[in-house]
Amino acid sequence: MRGVEVEPVLEAVERGFPASVERLVELLRIPSVGTDPAFAEETKRAATWLVDRLRAIGFDASLRPTPGMPMVVAHDRDAPADAPHLLYYAHYDVQPPDPLGEWESPPFEPVIVEGPHGPRLVARGAVDDKGQLMTWVEALAAWKAVHGRLPVRVSILIEGEEESASENLEPFLVAHAEELRADVCVISDTGMLGVDEPAITTMLRGIAYFELRLRGPGRDLHSGMFGGAVPNPIHVLCRVLAELHDAEGRIALPGFYDRVVELDPEIRARWQRIPFDEKGFLETAGLSRSVGEAGRTVLERLWSRPCCDVNGIWGGYTGEGSKTVIPARAAAKLSFRLVPDQDPEEVAEQLRAFLAARIPAHVAWELVAMGMGRPIRVPTGSPFLAAARRALARVFGKEPALIGCGGSIPVTASIKHRLGMDSLLLGFGLDDDRVHSPNEKFELACYRKGILSHAAFLAEAAGIRG
Amino acid sequence: MRGVEVEPVLEAVERGFPASVERLVELLRIPSVGTDPAFAEETKRAATWLVDRLRAIGFDASLRPTPGMPMVVAHDRDAPADAPHLLYYAHYDVQPPDPLGEWESPPFEPVIVEGPHGPRLVARGAVDDKGQLMTWVEALAAWKAVHGRLPVRVSILIEGEEESASENLEPFLVAHAEELRADVCVISDTGMLGVDEPAITTMLRGIAYFELRLRGPGRDLHSGMFGGAVPNPIHVLCRVLAELHDAEGRIALPGFYDRVVELDPEIRARWQRIPFDEKGFLETAGLSRSVGEAGRTVLERLWSRPCCDVNGIWGGYTGEGSKTVIPARAAAKLSFRLVPDQDPEEVAEQLRAFLAARIPAHVAWELVAMGMGRPIRVPTGSPFLAAARRALARVFGKEPALIGCGGSIPVTASIKHRLGMDSLLLGFGLDDDRVHSPNEKFELACYRKGILSHAAFLAEAAGIRG
Repeated sequence: MRGVEVEPVLEAVERGFPASVERLVELLRIPSVGTDPAFAEETKRAATWLVDRLRAIGFDASLRPTPGMPMVVAHDRDAPADAPHLLYYAHYDVQPPDPLGEWESPPFEPVIVEGPHGPRLVARGAVDDKGQLMTWVEALAAWKAVHGRLPVRVSILIEGEEESASENLEPFLVAHAEELRADVCVISDTGMLGVDEPAITTMLRGIAYFELRLRGPGRDLHSGMFGGAVPNPIHVLCRVLAELHDAEGRIALPGFYDRVVELDPEIRARWQRIPFDEKGFLETAGLSRSVGEAGRTVLERLWSRPCCDVNGIWGGYTGEGSKTVIPARAAAKLSFRLVPDQDPEEVAEQLRAFLAARIPAHVAWELVAMGMGRPIRVPTGSPFLAAARRALARVFGKEPALIGCGGSIPVTASIKHRLGMDSLLLGFGLDDDRVHSPNEKFELACYRKGILSHAAFLAEAAGIRG
Repeated sequence: MRGVEVEPVLEAVERGFPASVERLVELLRIPSVGTDPAFAEETKRAATWLVDRLRAIGFDASLRPTPGMPMVVAHDRDAPADAPHLLYYAHYDVQPPDPLGEWESPPFEPVIVEGPHGPRLVARGAVDDKGQLMTWVEALAAWKAVHGRLPVRVSILIEGEEESASENLEPFLVAHAEELRADVCVISDTGMLGVDEPAITTMLRGIAYFELRLRGPGRDLHSGMFGGAVPNPIHVLCRVLAELHDAEGRIALPGFYDRVVELDPEIRARWQRIPFDEKGFLETAGLSRSVGEAGRTVLERLWSRPCCDVNGIWGGYTGEGSKTVIPARAAAKLSFRLVPDQDPEEVAEQLRAFLAARIPAHVAWELVAMGMGRPIRVPTGSPFLAAARRALARVFGKEPALIGCGGSIPVTASIKHRLGMDSLLLGFGLDDDRVHSPNEKFELACYRKGILSHAAFLAEAAGIRG
């Protein structure tokens, strides 16, 4: 069929790249901070922008209400009924830009600045996930523009609550399972090993995120009048959080490692050949050395081992100067990254038992689960994975590495569980993109190669027959 | 001499008590929140009100500028040159009234409400320190009204920055040492054991207050991308703070207890006879049980043992919902309450060494001292203490208890250090007065007996010859 001639599409992508950048800038100008109620209208505006854009390309696109942010759903079914069917997933919400003072330019006024890899786009969401989602939106647009239609059947689902635990995603998947089910789910929310080092992510850590709230005295007390005779909830909180790790950097919850699968020796060997720049990786984090579980390389720690981090802590007086208070309350946010075959619900039970054994009876506490996602392994025998490897090899001139990812993309577990589909994780971020941090950026080189890769992948995927 | 006839003065106090209440209400209406720049003019107005009042009584009173709030200084030298010389110290500034929503009546619109001990005055500053300072101002006024002069020489110093660390007090004491030096400093900023249970405070804990700031990564990191391989400053902070106390509730700084003087067995025996309502004390704190150093009573823990409390902690994401961040920074405010003969500067060195031994080299840290005050012991052989005991016994019909106080009154250390004078801590507050909290109150019964006690004390003090 005429539709699988990829060369003119790739040429169109190159020619149209400046316009692709402009469209991404337009989307980045919308402050879609989904977690902050003050930005609810702006977040919805990002969804509307995507619906408009997908319609302009030729999709049957619509906004679907949920109890939270609406879903963007779109379909293009012009390809033959026996052509493969891809479901693209992404999210249009972004992380809050705090701390605002550390941004060199306003987070929602995208700027292009020159870096070691050429121009880069700096803005909140530049890579996570607006830049990444626009790689495939632009590739789909190029196919439509050149050939009038796509070589495969395509459905699209873009949510607005990924950065706040995707509360409404699973119910939506369940309610629209027939409409959304496809042969594979394509997600661009992962990274490469370098600007010229393509990669496909085949392992993702899961997550179990909690808020722990402690209550000591009934009100804030004067630390002179009461100090030494009453419980201080900050002390109790620090003690239990300190005990979460043992002296070897392992997590101290009883049973935590029971289901952890040791890394396949062949994968370990392959990872050891990855040209991973540990020094550069640490430099992007402002660090000179790594810490963590003893006896593991940095990549093993990040991709194949579970971990636990306190993500936030607060209690008592935190303003300028001094205030002599014993606070009534203290709290922390903490999260576990999980690997196959750990179960976040089981970890929640382990944590609850750990806390119950340690928090004294005179301190009231509650543990609130705030986001759960299972760890994921992508089957390496998948024809879509093979197609993606060929597409990347064509665009980059070299074989992509099959890597792990320390982050969690809980939607992959939801899609597996609710729709029975595997995911293909084809991402174009770099380790130094400052995801979730001030001055988040996306290399324009990565954006361009991302669009080219998705365009090439559509052609490769078209050759697959079920 | 005629001036030492005390009976007519006590009668005048009783007769004039309604007017004494009116004057206190007038002073409480002035919102002298010294720590808040928005209230600077109002705070100065409280100083002016006091100067006017002291002049009306017959004092040579004036407002003395400082780089911050002015000092009120007043003298009355009509008594014979060989009469004892008292310096009264107090403060006219009050704590901010926040949280405003928890007040049952506006904090600067004093109201008299009926309580279990009769009428009480509710307002910010009702007891700390406006109500207390008016006990001796009214006593001095009664003496002047009845006898035309005071039986002792009296100087007065009232500052406006006590609630914000008294930054300008020490320089003022140094610059005006000759003018202010007296035989003893009388301070009413402490409490009784009950509305009919007089007390004199002879031990005050000192304080050493710090802010500890930690820095891990150079910026906030994504906890998925970096978790398990990089240091988290919240973990390090929790670990060192958890290690500040051992399993018996003792403070783990090496050398911390070296200078702690064990309580005199006779004082311990006397404290054991104090009718201390432990249950009621804990109830005011919203607690059902006490914690703390093993093998000590609650009063011993509060009055004679050092302690350490984390007064505030913060780091990472503390907003609604979840954010998967490994923070660049974490910090805490922590303070030690000290007892004789501990030295706050020495404790600072012990803490610094403790931290240096525990914080790993890859985490940068700094420790900022934010307030230091030595512990205080009032010499029990002082003739002024004996005079105060006689005065209280006369007014209350029972011997006052000699008690400790868990809080710190740093001015006592400054006056000892800069003017070489001991202090006499003659206070009329109660544990449930809600000092620094919403709905602060002063029992009118305490106010009345406070005025009577100061009036009686002036007569007793007049009998002392150097």
